[in-house]
Amino acid sequence: MSSPRFQQGMEKLKELCVADENSPTGHMEIGDSFKDIAPDLTRMVVEFAFGDVYARPGLSNRQKVLTTISALVAQGTPQIGMHVITGLNVGLTADEIAGCIVHLIPYVGFPRALNALKVAQEVFKEQGVKITLAHELTNR
Amino acid sequence: MSSPRFQQGMEKLKELCVADENSPTGHMEIGDSFKDIAPDLTRMVVEFAFGDVYARPGLSNRQKVLTTISALVAQGTPQIGMHVITGLNVGLTADEIAGCIVHLIPYVGFPRALNALKVAQEVFKEQGVKITLAHELTNR
Amino acid sequence: MSSPRFQQGMEKLKELCVADENSPTGHMEIGDSFKDIAPDLTRMVVEFAFGDVYARPGLSNRQKVLTTISALVAQGTPQIGMHVITGLNVGLTADEIAGCIVHLIPYVGFPRALNALKVAQEVFKEQGVKITLAHELTNR
Amino acid sequence: MSSPRFQQGMEKLKELCVADENSPTGHMEIGDSFKDIAPDLTRMVVEFAFGDVYARPGLSNRQKVLTTISALVAQGTPQIGMHVITGLNVGLTADEIAGCIVHLIPYVGFPRALNALKVAQEVFKEQGVKITLAHELTNR
Amino acid sequence: MSSPRFQQGMEKLKELCVADENSPTGHMEIGDSFKDIAPDLTRMVVEFAFGDVYARPGLSNRQKVLTTISALVAQGTPQIGMHVITGLNVGLTADEIAGCIVHLIPYVGFPRALNALKVAQEVFKEQGVKITLAHELTNR
Amino acid sequence: MSSPRFQQGMEKLKELCVADENSPTGHMEIGDSFKDIAPDLTRMVVEFAFGDVYARPGLSNRQKVLTTISALVAQGTPQIGMHVITGLNVGLTADEIAGCIVHLIPYVGFPRALNALKVAQEVFKEQGVKITLAHELTNR
Repeated sequence: MSSPRFQQGMEKLKELCVADENSPTGHMEIGDSFKDIAPDLTRMVVEFAFGDVYARPGLSNRQKVLTTISALVAQGTPQIGMHVITGLNVGLTADEIAGCIVHLIPYVGFPRALNALKVAQEVFKEQGVKITLAHELTNR
Repeated sequence: MSSPRFQQGMEKLKELCVADENSPTGHMEIGDSFKDIAPDLTRMVVEFAFGDVYARPGLSNRQKVLTTISALVAQGTPQIGMHVITGLNVGLTADEIAGCIVHLIPYVGFPRALNALKVAQEVFKEQGVKITLAHELTNR
Repeated sequence: MSSPRFQQGMEKLKELCVADENSPTGHMEIGDSFKDIAPDLTRMVVEFAFGDVYARPGLSNRQKVLTTISALVAQGTPQIGMHVITGLNVGLTADEIAGCIVHLIPYVGFPRALNALKVAQEVFKEQGVKITLAHELTNR
Repeated sequence: MSSPRFQQGMEKLKELCVADENSPTGHMEIGDSFKDIAPDLTRMVVEFAFGDVYARPGLSNRQKVLTTISALVAQGTPQIGMHVITGLNVGLTADEIAGCIVHLIPYVGFPRALNALKVAQEVFKEQGVKITLAHELTNR
Repeated sequence: MSSPRFQQGMEKLKELCVADENSPTGHMEIGDSFKDIAPDLTRMVVEFAFGDVYARPGLSNRQKVLTTISALVAQGTPQIGMHVITGLNVGLTADEIAGCIVHLIPYVGFPRALNALKVAQEVFKEQGVKITLAHELTNR
Repeated sequence: MSSPRFQQGMEKLKELCVADENSPTGHMEIGDSFKDIAPDLTRMVVEFAFGDVYARPGLSNRQKVLTTISALVAQGTPQIGMHVITGLNVGLTADEIAGCIVHLIPYVGFPRALNALKVAQEVFKEQGVKITLAHELTNR
């Protein structure tokens, strides 16, 4: 488990997750939770998803997480919460995250967007973050 | 057709599309092409998609288009090309656009990502743009 | 918030929802519930979804809701329940709603249809409505 | 191939398709075209899709086809054209079919709706049908 | 309800489900649970899904269930658990079922695969089965 | 490009593809075709998809390809043809491949299954293979 790609993945994971040690994001727990039925999953997540893909140059961490959240909104998969936390860790604001989900309404429709907004809303409450554009958006 | 929202949408559309008058993006042609069977579609696209959503504060144009492309990659819808052109218009680089699609492989799987890469590749050729990180990515 | 489109949307919403004041459908609560993170969502829902789209001529309310339910069955999104209530409000029968879901089995497969049937079944129980063709369908 | 269900399916198929013998809808050709690799497909289509499902009481033919089109718009599958033809055969108007697709924009997003509108537009041209609400929709 | 196809479907259902009478799979309960709103559903499930499709020659039962699980992983529908039980009943091992889900990561992405792994993990616990390749997979 | 995982992936790729040198499957061309915009894609495909996933113990090659085809049928992605060729290479019969697609009708609906059948039918013609159960299936 100590290939260069694995090391690279672990470093990237730490960079994405421990900006604030009080807000774990769940990425590191994924592999562990499936050790009994897929013991090589940790290696795949760390080496491929983080060592190959997240560690890739060309996009900022903020762009990478915004891109991820957008795809999950479109898919309707329930893992969005974990990535909203990661987004806050790497410096995306609540305005950017909520704004991304609202931006997708014309592309994915209201139902998928509303599902995602609900998850983001819960994470924002847990993390104690708020949007700052509330006044401006109210009076558009 | 001259509501404040419609004006706002038209301004936003021009901002997104005519950075380079030689690269039309197709947004403005959508409504026209369906005038015979949905004559109010232009108004919906301009007022809602552009006046309400694209003109919304909180995300940069570059973030908005990256977010859009990510959702379409996940959906597998064929309209990605039009948004890749818009992305180049608002200042996304070929590295960012291709990087966004590659970044989504762990989330949407290879098939949808490869379909989107092919569309981006064709637009890049037509527009004469190249990625600049080729050397760095080759030697990872 | 008092554009002509907003007025039109509010009127349509009332028409769809308060046929029976005891069966709220949830459409009016959507915007309110996201006021903190997307304060302009109410306006988008009312102006676009109801003022532009539901208020559009060409389909009856019953056709509009049946069409909506069909798309949500295919998508597998959980908001079907709210639209089943709206369907009953505008005069769709339980036979038509359950029939629509069963009709889609050859197009969307059993899993998505069964998920939707379960949601409809719960709404029918809450609202005290029954299908009338039970005998005829049993003996086909 | 002469079970009561097969007879029922064939009768239903004729009812749906030969309103106008000049506009075949393709349902009857499906099975034939796969005879070499799935010789029992015709029976499944006729017995199940038409004998069991289309012949089911509870919805009118017009409702059945509108429901089918709505699900295919949401799925993004390319078979919509065949069902638009069937829709015209059973008495749906071009206004109803185009209206159904536009109605779904808030639920499935613009990309899937625009793809479907394009298919409907082509069928309308081939069949020589037009929407009648053009004036009213233009001046909303 | 005693057509030859229905008989064939019931026989197939028994073959798939009662290898171990202590692990019911839920297939037989589907129709019953919707008797009030879709009384002909049992017949459709038994005649079409089991009599026509599962009873079809050409694939082994193990192949049929593996194929079904793979499609449900890709769809993201929650019925996977029932089919994991059926898989164990017809002789698929926990290694094959978990292996199938992990195999799909490059095609459907991590989120859908992880959702499915979680369902399989719960069924494996309930049924008291384990993967046997744990050691080999750990040390790849 | 010569990590142990890359070697493992290349070996697996050869095993899957060159059973018959006259039927290339396209897997090896994927990376090459995107060299200009994603030069690290080849490494990801070979190391992850083939070195990590296809080389994983627990499923036979035939099971792996059947599983892949099933997921792609459900997704509706157009890459099925390449995997049908791989399936024939590793020893799946035309009966198994066509049977798998027909088996999925109750789960994914007719439209996605028919799309996939058409692709398989074309590959079978190109490769000169036929189903052997035609007679038996015709007379069910």
